[in-house]
Amino acid sequence: MVVGFEKAVSATKSVVTSAKKAPTTLSSDRVINFARGDPTMYESYWRQMGEKCTIVISGHNLMSYFSNAGHFCWFLMPELDRAIRRLHCVVGNAVVDDDRYIVVGNGSTQLFQAVLYALSSSYDPDTEPLSVVAAAPFYSSYPEETDFLRSGLYKWAGDAYSFDKDGAYIEVVTSPNNPDGAIREAVVNRDGGKLIHDLAYYWPQYTPITGKADNDIMLFTFSKATGHAGSRIGWAIVKDIEVATKMVKFMELSSIGVSKESQLRAAKILEVISDDCQNSAPDKEENFFEYGHRLMSDRWEKLREVVKRNGVFSLPKYPQDYCNFIGKYTDPSPAFAWLKSKDGLNCDNLLRELKIVTRGGTNFGVDSNYTRISMLSPDEDFNLLLERLSAIKGTIINGNN
Amino acid sequence: MVVGFEKAVSATKSVVTSAKKAPTTLSSDRVINFARGDPTMYESYWRQMGEKCTIVISGHNLMSYFSNAGHFCWFLMPELDRAIRRLHCVVGNAVVDDDRYIVVGNGSTQLFQAVLYALSSSYDPDTEPLSVVAAAPFYSSYPEETDFLRSGLYKWAGDAYSFDKDGAYIEVVTSPNNPDGAIREAVVNRDGGKLIHDLAYYWPQYTPITGKADNDIMLFTFSKATGHAGSRIGWAIVKDIEVATKMVKFMELSSIGVSKESQLRAAKILEVISDDCQNSAPDKEENFFEYGHRLMSDRWEKLREVVKRNGVFSLPKYPQDYCNFIGKYTDPSPAFAWLKSKDGLNCDNLLRELKIVTRGGTNFGVDSNYTRISMLSPDEDFNLLLERLSAIKGTIINGNN
Repeated sequence: MVVGFEKAVSATKSVVTSAKKAPTTLSSDRVINFARGDPTMYESYWRQMGEKCTIVISGHNLMSYFSNAGHFCWFLMPELDRAIRRLHCVVGNAVVDDDRYIVVGNGSTQLFQAVLYALSSSYDPDTEPLSVVAAAPFYSSYPEETDFLRSGLYKWAGDAYSFDKDGAYIEVVTSPNNPDGAIREAVVNRDGGKLIHDLAYYWPQYTPITGKADNDIMLFTFSKATGHAGSRIGWAIVKDIEVATKMVKFMELSSIGVSKESQLRAAKILEVISDDCQNSAPDKEENFFEYGHRLMSDRWEKLREVVKRNGVFSLPKYPQDYCNFIGKYTDPSPAFAWLKSKDGLNCDNLLRELKIVTRGGTNFGVDSNYTRISMLSPDEDFNLLLERLSAIKGTIINGNN
Repeated sequence: MVVGFEKAVSATKSVVTSAKKAPTTLSSDRVINFARGDPTMYESYWRQMGEKCTIVISGHNLMSYFSNAGHFCWFLMPELDRAIRRLHCVVGNAVVDDDRYIVVGNGSTQLFQAVLYALSSSYDPDTEPLSVVAAAPFYSSYPEETDFLRSGLYKWAGDAYSFDKDGAYIEVVTSPNNPDGAIREAVVNRDGGKLIHDLAYYWPQYTPITGKADNDIMLFTFSKATGHAGSRIGWAIVKDIEVATKMVKFMELSSIGVSKESQLRAAKILEVISDDCQNSAPDKEENFFEYGHRLMSDRWEKLREVVKRNGVFSLPKYPQDYCNFIGKYTDPSPAFAWLKSKDGLNCDNLLRELKIVTRGGTNFGVDSNYTRISMLSPDEDFNLLLERLSAIKGTIINGNN
């Protein structure tokens, strides 16, 4: 059965490579999937934390719909609100002053849609739907999340670089960007524009923290911050109470709030991270972000080495910057590698010959000579990836498919 | 701050009652809210269950997006799938044979929208949106959940009794009905109709279980089945794999699945209920549904007595029926009381004078001489309700507002 989110391995046209000629160089024949960003890499860190992050929930706990009746976001648990604000203060990656409003969602996916609703629902119903744009390459799910219900409120309008319609619009600014890891700013910059900043990857393991983000609407997600994708917890930090209140209305109508079990667990884990980051004992263990950054740097170094050696692909170069959190200059190590084939070949198909499933450039609004590879897979898969990429050895016999 | 889902107490025009004349007869002056169906009444049952229902989750558990990769509903945990099927078998309220597909959602609210998408997304984009109807009085949230995004796929078309458009349509059949507790069947019955059966209240504590429901698309929710509203778990039982698969697509685009913490907890609690129901030991405790049915019957008896005595309102009468689960004839004891004022007065306003907040008939597509009262409130609130209703004593001096 074809599974949408997972993407089934589709049959691809033949691209003969040296790897194909010499399959014995592969340690395994299984298909390895790097199309999705499932952050299971962090599991071993959390395992070694033992009972510190364990939560216990009795049968009679967390039963009511309400977490904070009377609060504008009545389903947000106060302990999660506190834990989110504390972590941002500790990391220094976003302004969370008292006049900023936190809205929790079932992942930042749902919050993205809540923002679209909040920014468009007060527009005249007789006008055209509000245009939603993002600079290519953009996160592959934005177009479908925007358009799947054929809303009369908003409509995907493609690449922000080529957007030339007058009037109101929404621009999504993803920074660091998914898929290519670039640090971004808005590109349209016209009157009537509203911005959504998707900051899912603005954490020290992925990029130097150069300052506190201070945008009108900022989205974060537990999945990418700590690796807990299964909890479906995201949060928005919002300046305007009217926007935040409309987002809450969306959440009410869409799912009557957010799992309290997940909120409780997210609060616990975020607090443990903050505690560890603030621990100044001389014998303290590596904190989560230090661990994540070390792992990601190591993976990037290995991947760059393999890519350089095989000569078939190229990877983006990122400038080093001073990370306020780590306290030194660091190299960005994005959650995805944005691979480009040097000879203009279809990157996705080329890799599928090696039983490596990736998400091709056309999904992100650019050409098929790009593809996105998740850098958050389990060690075993990542090592297989390196092994298979090493085996290409630059011998592409039949390309351009 | 006005909270949408909770509904703030709005100022109402004056209706002078004997209760107003003699405020000393009220044990408390606080506003009591029966507008929402927060099922906190069941908390004491789950508290007495002690550790049997406790779940423990470590920091490294449940991290992946995936619960069952390769399964059509890849985010549904197999243990929840099993627990749902087992409970329906034990209670005998729905067919869950192997050829029925379970889709989990963030409450049945999200699943309702997933069904609308599934049933409408294959229609020609140039045709009008598919009409969605329900027989009045209908659940007050259906119209807004259907229309808030101004979808081009589907559109609320009001009371099924007056629906006369040709062509395809969707009818929601809520049975027992929210707000009035009636056992229902489809009313439009024309070619091109698709049915959604919302069976949130088809459990033994609310109504006699007279047979296994065997409809194409059936919605259930953890909130109303066991009282765990904060977990946001609902499930659909679906006959057609194509519909189920499209619902999964909706869940992917809307929230990339459902909290695993909540799924794990729901699985645990449903299994405990099934265990208790199947326990045949002579000294066994009352199971959850027996407890719920006893409580609800007791509340309904008291409410009917007060309503009969004060002479201002009337309540629906329900036929007794044989409950296959309890094994005897039982009276329905719905989760909501559907109160009608005998003199055609605005029921909601009348009760707000007594500081009782309810949800008026106009929200459900009928007149304001009806109102809905939740029967699932904590004991203290329910007792205050009885006390205040008793104090009306049929003296309405200034009505018709």
